Amino acid sequence: MNLYETLAADIEGQVKRGVLLEGERLPSVRQTSQHRNLSISTVLRAYSLLESRGVIESRPQSGYFVRPPLRGVARDVVPAPLVLSSAVDVSRLVLSTLRSIRSHNAVPLGTPYPDPAPYPWPRISQYANAIARRNQDWTVMDDLPPGNPELIRQIARRHMENGMAVDPSEIIVTVGATEAINLCLQAAARPGDTIVVESPTYYAFLHAIERMGMRALEVPTDPRDGISIEALRTILSQQRVAACMVMPNFQNPLGFQMPDARKRELVALLSQHDIPVIENDVYHELYYGDSHPTSLKAYDTKGLVLHCSSFSKSLTANYRIGWALPGRYTAQVEKLKFLNTLATPSQPQMAIAEYLQNDGYDRHLRKVRKGYEQRARMMAAAVTRFFPAGTSVSTPQGGYVLWVGLPQGVDAMRLYALALERKITIGPGHMFSARGSYTNYIRLNYSYPWSKEIEQAVRTLGLLVRDLL
Amino acid sequence: MNLYETLAADIEGQVKRGVLLEGERLPSVRQTSQHRNLSISTVLRAYSLLESRGVIESRPQSGYFVRPPLRGVARDVVPAPLVLSSAVDVSRLVLSTLRSIRSHNAVPLGTPYPDPAPYPWPRISQYANAIARRNQDWTVMDDLPPGNPELIRQIARRHMENGMAVDPSEIIVTVGATEAINLCLQAAARPGDTIVVESPTYYAFLHAIERMGMRALEVPTDPRDGISIEALRTILSQQRVAACMVMPNFQNPLGFQMPDARKRELVALLSQHDIPVIENDVYHELYYGDSHPTSLKAYDTKGLVLHCSSFSKSLTANYRIGWALPGRYTAQVEKLKFLNTLATPSQPQMAIAEYLQNDGYDRHLRKVRKGYEQRARMMAAAVTRFFPAGTSVSTPQGGYVLWVGLPQGVDAMRLYALALERKITIGPGHMFSARGSYTNYIRLNYSYPWSKEIEQAVRTLGLLVRDLL
Repeated sequence: MNLYETLAADIEGQVKRGVLLEGERLPSVRQTSQHRNLSISTVLRAYSLLESRGVIESRPQSGYFVRPPLRGVARDVVPAPLVLSSAVDVSRLVLSTLRSIRSHNAVPLGTPYPDPAPYPWPRISQYANAIARRNQDWTVMDDLPPGNPELIRQIARRHMENGMAVDPSEIIVTVGATEAINLCLQAAARPGDTIVVESPTYYAFLHAIERMGMRALEVPTDPRDGISIEALRTILSQQRVAACMVMPNFQNPLGFQMPDARKRELVALLSQHDIPVIENDVYHELYYGDSHPTSLKAYDTKGLVLHCSSFSKSLTANYRIGWALPGRYTAQVEKLKFLNTLATPSQPQMAIAEYLQNDGYDRHLRKVRKGYEQRARMMAAAVTRFFPAGTSVSTPQGGYVLWVGLPQGVDAMRLYALALERKITIGPGHMFSARGSYTNYIRLNYSYPWSKEIEQAVRTLGLLVRDLL
Repeated sequence: MNLYETLAADIEGQVKRGVLLEGERLPSVRQTSQHRNLSISTVLRAYSLLESRGVIESRPQSGYFVRPPLRGVARDVVPAPLVLSSAVDVSRLVLSTLRSIRSHNAVPLGTPYPDPAPYPWPRISQYANAIARRNQDWTVMDDLPPGNPELIRQIARRHMENGMAVDPSEIIVTVGATEAINLCLQAAARPGDTIVVESPTYYAFLHAIERMGMRALEVPTDPRDGISIEALRTILSQQRVAACMVMPNFQNPLGFQMPDARKRELVALLSQHDIPVIENDVYHELYYGDSHPTSLKAYDTKGLVLHCSSFSKSLTANYRIGWALPGRYTAQVEKLKFLNTLATPSQPQMAIAEYLQNDGYDRHLRKVRKGYEQRARMMAAAVTRFFPAGTSVSTPQGGYVLWVGLPQGVDAMRLYALALERKITIGPGHMFSARGSYTNYIRLNYSYPWSKEIEQAVRTLGLLVRDLL
């Protein structure tokens, strides 16, 4: 190919791939000549070839523009197809599920995220805007770990109000709880190590373990009391465990709140063996009871609890602001944060800090909690009504997901596929175990206001389950 | 301790640590009672104890407030002291250097970041604000990898304008180039593997290698032509190398632009051995020549070049938006992105996309490049004038850092410490090698407008170097 043909082929390829859209102006002949280090005449020849092929058109005094394509150009990213195999790749399954929800515009019973409507993001965004106007000469240095001092103070304050005194110098701001969990695990254990998790477990724990080349050991977990301390004690007497990862409050997917006595017992047992425990407490503020739950961290005397949380479930998911309280691993997690993403942007941190300082965080949360508590009952009632005998439902004590056990033999992945055809998404139980357990369980999100559409979706799911019996 | 004494001690601790500031209102007695699950009388007794100790005061009809402390309360995070040892922990050294720059309000010759003043952040921030107003019901699902489709299109377009046709489905948006580099390395190599880097090398490469439990192999690098392909060829004939990490354009710290012929040769050699190469191209837009440099990626025919870049050096550092073009590792990097930080916030992505679409990115860059090119000459001239004989300076072809070789025997860490006392920061050469090379080298940032203060700082550095001879 000549130079001009190569250039023409390049540009035509970009139009086909949707990089250049219909009606969009091409870079000028002069720009292209300069950027590509080609002569003006070569560029003109390429443009004229494209014109003759009907790819672009020249408009007098304006330049060259992309002509309407023959077929529609894919502008969005096509989601990867859902891969089903006996050895489930949990992270790919989760990502596929999330993509399906988005791309199918489906009833979002499968999403792990709360309905964004009641969250005060517009207000926080106003703060962010004012902050941006005040700070026009920011550099990355202002954003270095551990994080924005004012947000760190507000986080410490909130912990204090919730009954847990924390040292602000232990707080490290992260890109959501996901980054916090990853960094804490890397600080606390090494590749090849065995990590204890609940069963079923929150899938991001499995992701982190898989990614670091560690091994997950799934320990029986009671749907009301949490991880079996008895089983854990037996395991610890027999094998080396490097760390433990749990969600003591409103576990995803079971929804339980571990009783205080058991939290204390768990921390004591692990401390005795000098085993660090990573606590994911992102649903802390979404309790249905009269008062805040306690955190494992509150029972920690040896710096072995690495507490992870975020504002994504309670305040704004859009900013991806989380934090870690890594106990004796603080210096290491701070360094890993620096290595992993260098800095967390300051603007969203400061905006959240201003909201926490000035606005009605508690009022907002009271409203949200009340809604979730009501919808937990409505969702459970609808499942009980529409699903066949042999179905079980959890009784969440906080958060916004219901764990539904289907009759033996019903494959949640098949239900997932059938439901998706009817524009309904669910969270298949396969996501919550690396061993392929919970294949007849599903997780349902009830954060959205109860509606005819949601009721109809639950009814449809019930009929599909009957078909699969 | 009684319950009320424990509560009082907790609150007093929080005041001492600066979580509660002077004049700030305490949570009400009712709130505290509810959150801590304590009786009203216990809380009242605790507050009254704190009052008697002078920690808080009650104001009629308003509640309890923190009284002025006896000594100033530390509100900011105190930077960790700079650790000097023979086995330099590169990442801790880099973090300490950055912190020192911030906390000492020093002349920022040591910063790796550009002067933020000429960057159009206020304009991009206006877009972000408008986007936030239009999108009030965003969920994390809209932000899932690979990234915002419009930004991906704009990135592909920019690559095309710069002479490199890329497939938009290969682009993965990340939290800055730092995350892109980490994910690409994890996708391309395994713990224990040997990774080839330039010598001196960009320290974030060393960080990523250190963090993943891999080993860095530093290969001689010419200050004008880049990594020695001859040396690399010899190495590859003798040992297994898993990947290579380079900065072919305006390398940090040397500033060279690898000639096209050598870029082509490097990619050919590595392709022949089927070795992936991670290319950090963040300074791509900051060239001093007449046209854009080429990227290694442009010579790649086997999908072995993992190209990493960001907008942090060319447009806005505040948003931490970078991207990767990981070639045949795309699916894996996309999954790792999901596991590492789940999602990159959409709002900053969309704001940058709108800027690229509507504003004068090229005009902005022309102005910035012109300034850097002038200051490169002024900084080199000042060093030549004020530093003793035996000093060498680089001749950067882009970017905004100068690499200065001090006379043999001058220890850059000692210079760093002495300069810091005079409120001047520099980048000690120790940061650019894991083997402890370059102990008599420093990196100087010249992105800030030339001023009397900067000239004076260079003069002071010259005097300090003479003292150290």
